[in-house]
Amino acid sequence: MSKEAEKFKLPMRYAGAEPSVWTEFIQMAIDYKPLNLGQGFPDYPPPEYITDTLAQVAVDPNPLLHQFTRGFGHPRLVKALSKLYSSLIGRQINERTEILTTSGAYEALFSAISGHTDVGDEVVVIEPFFDCYEPMITYAGGIPRYVPLRLKEVTGRLPTSADWVWDKDELENAFNEKTKMIIVNTPNNPLGKVLSMEELTQIANLCKKWNVLCLSDEVYEWLVYKPHKHIRMATLPGMWDRTITVGSAGKTFSVTGWKVGWAYCPANLMKNLQMVHQNCVYSGVTPIQESVAIAFEKEMDRMDSDECFFNSLVRDLEAKRDYMIKILQDVGMVPTVPDGGYFVLADWSALESKVDFNSETDKYRDYRFTKWMSKKVGLQGIPPTVFYSSPNKHCVENFVRYCFIKDNETLRQAEEILQRWKNTGKSMKNS
Amino acid sequence: MSKEAEKFKLPMRYAGAEPSVWTEFIQMAIDYKPLNLGQGFPDYPPPEYITDTLAQVAVDPNPLLHQFTRGFGHPRLVKALSKLYSSLIGRQINERTEILTTSGAYEALFSAISGHTDVGDEVVVIEPFFDCYEPMITYAGGIPRYVPLRLKEVTGRLPTSADWVWDKDELENAFNEKTKMIIVNTPNNPLGKVLSMEELTQIANLCKKWNVLCLSDEVYEWLVYKPHKHIRMATLPGMWDRTITVGSAGKTFSVTGWKVGWAYCPANLMKNLQMVHQNCVYSGVTPIQESVAIAFEKEMDRMDSDECFFNSLVRDLEAKRDYMIKILQDVGMVPTVPDGGYFVLADWSALESKVDFNSETDKYRDYRFTKWMSKKVGLQGIPPTVFYSSPNKHCVENFVRYCFIKDNETLRQAEEILQRWKNTGKSMKNS
Repeated sequence: MSKEAEKFKLPMRYAGAEPSVWTEFIQMAIDYKPLNLGQGFPDYPPPEYITDTLAQVAVDPNPLLHQFTRGFGHPRLVKALSKLYSSLIGRQINERTEILTTSGAYEALFSAISGHTDVGDEVVVIEPFFDCYEPMITYAGGIPRYVPLRLKEVTGRLPTSADWVWDKDELENAFNEKTKMIIVNTPNNPLGKVLSMEELTQIANLCKKWNVLCLSDEVYEWLVYKPHKHIRMATLPGMWDRTITVGSAGKTFSVTGWKVGWAYCPANLMKNLQMVHQNCVYSGVTPIQESVAIAFEKEMDRMDSDECFFNSLVRDLEAKRDYMIKILQDVGMVPTVPDGGYFVLADWSALESKVDFNSETDKYRDYRFTKWMSKKVGLQGIPPTVFYSSPNKHCVENFVRYCFIKDNETLRQAEEILQRWKNTGKSMKNS
Repeated sequence: MSKEAEKFKLPMRYAGAEPSVWTEFIQMAIDYKPLNLGQGFPDYPPPEYITDTLAQVAVDPNPLLHQFTRGFGHPRLVKALSKLYSSLIGRQINERTEILTTSGAYEALFSAISGHTDVGDEVVVIEPFFDCYEPMITYAGGIPRYVPLRLKEVTGRLPTSADWVWDKDELENAFNEKTKMIIVNTPNNPLGKVLSMEELTQIANLCKKWNVLCLSDEVYEWLVYKPHKHIRMATLPGMWDRTITVGSAGKTFSVTGWKVGWAYCPANLMKNLQMVHQNCVYSGVTPIQESVAIAFEKEMDRMDSDECFFNSLVRDLEAKRDYMIKILQDVGMVPTVPDGGYFVLADWSALESKVDFNSETDKYRDYRFTKWMSKKVGLQGIPPTVFYSSPNKHCVENFVRYCFIKDNETLRQAEEILQRWKNTGKSMKNS
């Protein structure tokens, strides 16, 4: 770097920053064209009425649907969100002061973390965690304190996501006077773990004991498989006052590319999020927010019906989950059966003789596995060590994360690729 | 505030933060329903082919148009931007490493400022400035250094935006060893000033002398009235290497609610913007970016034709500008004729006897004027002191900013409201 260019290096708060795993793996998908079970999005169409709604909004005679809307949330959308969550949380949520719509749930997480983390604040993070939490905390000057979920000993059956548990003492010891926030993700990405009332209560008690906020990332709130139930942290006794809940239209309506998310919380906590939001993006996309509002209005009118997308999607996904588990078991991996979400974590260590670990130079085995598989076998997954902090990456070094919100034909192709690999030990690409 | 809640106040970096002027004035527009010449957006439809394109993209058979796209920019859009700006700048701009698409130009400004400002860095800002620059600089730990444009003595004619000039010594004295960046906005909001080659060269020479970046906010690049010409800072000798240019689909295609912006600059400078972007929103809206890409492809095919929207919009706007100038002159204000953009700054001091300044309590007279006018006369403008730093707010305390990218009928109503106010001294609302 020239002396001139040296001046324009990253500011100190980004010291040690690394490119996101997604940048590398998305580029790899473009370059090598593997069957993509990496990033979390469906490869089949969203409900037809959703895309039709956007088409109608686009040509609506009201020209203001293409212009700036209210910065903290398009009025029709915050109204719909207020109606929905007031009913689910059991208290009136003010659409003007207690809801913020954002550029995807991602920006809601950014606004919450950046708006509530001062230099030196500690933030407790349950592992595995959505990888963006960590840089968002450190760039705000915060210090993450990690509490890992570890797989219990399981015999005679497949493990489920409920078998991944934290050590209660470890959780308690993570809290102290400096703790500002805990980040909880239920249902969890990548595990699919749905936190039980007992687990949520442990966290809630610690939040109240130490006067700590809970940032509850509930973007997979509608994707929970029976008999499990999604419990919203904000409904626990005394927790509304200290909980910021994050949701996602992308996950709710299978339109991840629409990038509409939201946060809801008491007004005094929301002010901090608004401050960050109004200084980074200011406002969301008007026609997209209008369309999401219309979609919510429709689904709220049929919440109890089988056709309600909140109910039909999870039914479809349960079948896909079961097929995916079978595929992975048949090939000799040990999948963890997820109770929620649309990812599965699978242990591939029984197959490691079929992997050329030397073709890649990454530090962690799961990176080498997933890269080699992408390039040589033609199937892309995500290395789950990205969801753990350095001291705990070993918990998942023999695992891979696959996404199963994919067309059945895509899953069938995945089965074929894995079977061929298992039987020949050769890549699809070279055979 | 309870002791418990005290813990959750804003982080120190937001100390002294105030709600954005837009939050207050947009709410006032909702509450009082004045004729709105405040925020900068058209109240008439964008080109029909643009909205039709979004409608078609919404129901395109490719389901991936509704899912996550490449985080640093949707491939089709960065390709179109690369083609357009490579030709305008006169060098090949790499679509992968030198262009970033963002959640509006607003997020491009945030990524550029936050990505290049470290604690203690100084940033030179020409006043008047788009009001978000200031908090974006200070939240990153930077120190703004302001250089005001002041209206020269003008006799025998209306002033134009070119009559607002900086003092050359003041500009030179704003630079020192700590200067990291200068922010330039041409055409300027709110003045409409289009920087001349001579003015741009002064800035460029100081950037090179002090090894300083130029953040060039060119969102109104297509809105320049003859015989003036928009000159891109990145085309000046030696400036490509140190210029980050920001553009906007909202301004370019009259769809401010689509919230698509971009930045382009050399890859070594872009890395910093990517780091911020990937940790706040990560990616933009896929169907909207696809639609913007298609719109650019269409316009690039007819750049030299009168029908090209880049040419037709500015023609339409010139007529609106001239009408707006006439309205303001007729009522007794002294407008500054803008050479670009879609705002006009007007001095209302000759009419101050007709204003009830005591009905509002704000510190600055232009706030009292605009609020009283919004509530009592029924016409909303924006107080321009928001675009100046405290020591220089006096430069525009007797001014108001009106937006004229409005339907001719809206402008006619504005004329009627202003004439009635002038003739009766009474509000429309009470009469």
